[in-house]
Amino acid sequence: MSDEPDLHLSRPEAHAPGMPLVTVIGDGQLARMMQQSGIGLGLTVRLLAGSGGSSAAQATGDVWLGDYTDENVVRAVSDGADAVTFDHEHVPNRFLEDLIAAGVNVQPRPSALINAQDKLVMRRRLRELGAPVPPFAEILSVADGEGFWDATDGAVCLKTRRGGYDGKGVWFPATRRETASLVAELLDRGVPLMAEKKVRLVRELSAMVARTPSGQTESWPVVESVQRDGVCSLAVAPAPVATDGQARVVAQAHTLARDIAAELGVTGVLAVELFETLDEAGEPEIIVNELAMRPHNTGHWTQDGCVTSQFEQHLRAVLDRPLGSTAMTSTTTVMANILGDPDGDPEMPTARRMDEVWRRYPTAKIHLYGKQWRPGRKIGHVNISLPTGTAATPVNVENLRRDAELAAGFLVTATWKDRGE
Amino acid sequence: MSDEPDLHLSRPEAHAPGMPLVTVIGDGQLARMMQQSGIGLGLTVRLLAGSGGSSAAQATGDVWLGDYTDENVVRAVSDGADAVTFDHEHVPNRFLEDLIAAGVNVQPRPSALINAQDKLVMRRRLRELGAPVPPFAEILSVADGEGFWDATDGAVCLKTRRGGYDGKGVWFPATRRETASLVAELLDRGVPLMAEKKVRLVRELSAMVARTPSGQTESWPVVESVQRDGVCSLAVAPAPVATDGQARVVAQAHTLARDIAAELGVTGVLAVELFETLDEAGEPEIIVNELAMRPHNTGHWTQDGCVTSQFEQHLRAVLDRPLGSTAMTSTTTVMANILGDPDGDPEMPTARRMDEVWRRYPTAKIHLYGKQWRPGRKIGHVNISLPTGTAATPVNVENLRRDAELAAGFLVTATWKDRGE
Repeated sequence: MSDEPDLHLSRPEAHAPGMPLVTVIGDGQLARMMQQSGIGLGLTVRLLAGSGGSSAAQATGDVWLGDYTDENVVRAVSDGADAVTFDHEHVPNRFLEDLIAAGVNVQPRPSALINAQDKLVMRRRLRELGAPVPPFAEILSVADGEGFWDATDGAVCLKTRRGGYDGKGVWFPATRRETASLVAELLDRGVPLMAEKKVRLVRELSAMVARTPSGQTESWPVVESVQRDGVCSLAVAPAPVATDGQARVVAQAHTLARDIAAELGVTGVLAVELFETLDEAGEPEIIVNELAMRPHNTGHWTQDGCVTSQFEQHLRAVLDRPLGSTAMTSTTTVMANILGDPDGDPEMPTARRMDEVWRRYPTAKIHLYGKQWRPGRKIGHVNISLPTGTAATPVNVENLRRDAELAAGFLVTATWKDRGE
Repeated sequence: MSDEPDLHLSRPEAHAPGMPLVTVIGDGQLARMMQQSGIGLGLTVRLLAGSGGSSAAQATGDVWLGDYTDENVVRAVSDGADAVTFDHEHVPNRFLEDLIAAGVNVQPRPSALINAQDKLVMRRRLRELGAPVPPFAEILSVADGEGFWDATDGAVCLKTRRGGYDGKGVWFPATRRETASLVAELLDRGVPLMAEKKVRLVRELSAMVARTPSGQTESWPVVESVQRDGVCSLAVAPAPVATDGQARVVAQAHTLARDIAAELGVTGVLAVELFETLDEAGEPEIIVNELAMRPHNTGHWTQDGCVTSQFEQHLRAVLDRPLGSTAMTSTTTVMANILGDPDGDPEMPTARRMDEVWRRYPTAKIHLYGKQWRPGRKIGHVNISLPTGTAATPVNVENLRRDAELAAGFLVTATWKDRGE
């Protein structure tokens, strides 16, 4: 550990005296959008960033440069903060325990955060609480892997307990033999493993809430999230409901997220990612997939579709301040991710692509993260809402969804998919 | 002039390569809110600020410290910018002419800006265009002042040609003798003067548009603005209309703002402040009061009541990019200014006052500027909208207006005016 953290960008004067100071560990787009909301609230977001050119650091006055795996750095940047929070789950929990012991207000608490860090811990805890989880097991040996294959009749999803996201750290072995060799290889590399039963997916849902240390909880409408290659591609808010069964599971998801937030003592924003599947009788049911304890990709639509965005709400929640209304300002909002094109970045500059999208869709709200192109990288998103007074009929929602996809597609490829341009 | 501007906070790495760079001259709340919008657009706002703790500098990564009356500084901070724009009208026009001659994209142009800087130039130009203006005259002597008194039968409003705002630089002399002595005193101090005929005010309106150098123009709905002691206190969007005559003048105001923007070659946001008065026949008519060529206090409601806020639109306009939809997301939004209490700042910290307002009004959107209390100083505003699907009936609008005033009142005084608390 260094004794003198390199914090040369720090700007204490970038702070209105008497107003709250929130230290955010992390410099990605979630921190960037927290900063954007913090500006309105008159508070200071102090950033612990890896570089001055990172997504959040570009947009922030009070940037500290340093490494979040260095406890001295984390301690220094937390000093004097009214709350310390995160845009990722990778800060070692023992640093956080030490901060709390020293009187620092860390939100969420490591005792809650562990459920967003370790999938096996999360699965066990949710099962205790009676939340719907798939059959699962810890995998400590090849025999465990083979046993799980046999028990699920080959419906095996193998996962790293920690650090997987956006489809990384998840495998679907096709045979018993592949299961065995995969488990052997991963355990050999020291990767802690678990397995769970693969579900027959109808669609994915996401239920998001914010909760304060005092226990105030506010939920956003449950959304449908569409994944491509394990990465969120679209979110449709609210989740369309075609049958009574779907209405029932959406309501269940809504309640479940509130219950999980309360039972786990989550503070700040919680995203409960869910699978909608079919039970033995062919009726919809839901199963918890993952938990995230921070603003989440499936909540980006709230920036333009809700009275209170997830970024503002997260800041209010970690400071234990009253939460805002989560009422929608449109009958439907669709968010589409802008993901770096695997085939390469088009020649047309990004700003010109935005202009083309704005010309076609004057209501499109484009959010960029200040990130350079890489294949599949999240570089922004676009939100688009039905005009005031327009009903969320299936046709209107379908058209909106198509518009969001076309807009995001143009931002990625500089072509309109529907025009062959 | 200094040869080496003191720009020690400048951070060139706070810029996503390939994305636009907008230099904003000024460090107040308008620049702060441009920065907030710029974050979403993925562009860089580079600030020329007077201090690192100023409203906008607190919230910005790329802050240059320097004096906008130093041409070297203005030139340096403009270097490499895709557009140069302003949060005030005080940069000497000859600097801007020099920048333009050197190929810098300054928006708005000094030829338009002069109409927001010099009220006599503006009055003459608007009269030429056939826009509704009151009788006015340049005042170069005491005799001019006395003559204007006689001509208007004592309905004299005396104004400095330059630099007045928020009720400053405006006088209403009560007698011919007071007119004479006031004119003598002001001319003696070298203040350039004009006079115009005082109007019998029914209410004030504000018509706002954005216009690009290419000529695309988008208008927001005309709002009613309520002034207290010469300072904007409330804006109600859209302006309530009680009679056919009011509907006619509101529509006229809407068209007028577009025409003025086009005729004067305004780029970026234009606010046309208007008096609604009564003609000889007792019918509503409008008269232009002032022009502002930048985001304006009467447009702050657009942050929470429109698809595209005035801050985003200004950035898009000065970069000559396609403008966004100005459709409202609610049937009515009211903005109330938070003005430092002349009787002193209450003991309750500002953050606690916000909490009380949020408890009572979960839909209230509070925007603070990072400014310390001073009597009458604009330190923030609150926007509050009718919930989705709620009609803008007179009762609903009146209640919303009362709520906005109560919320702003609490933020200023830490008391609820309706509860005697």
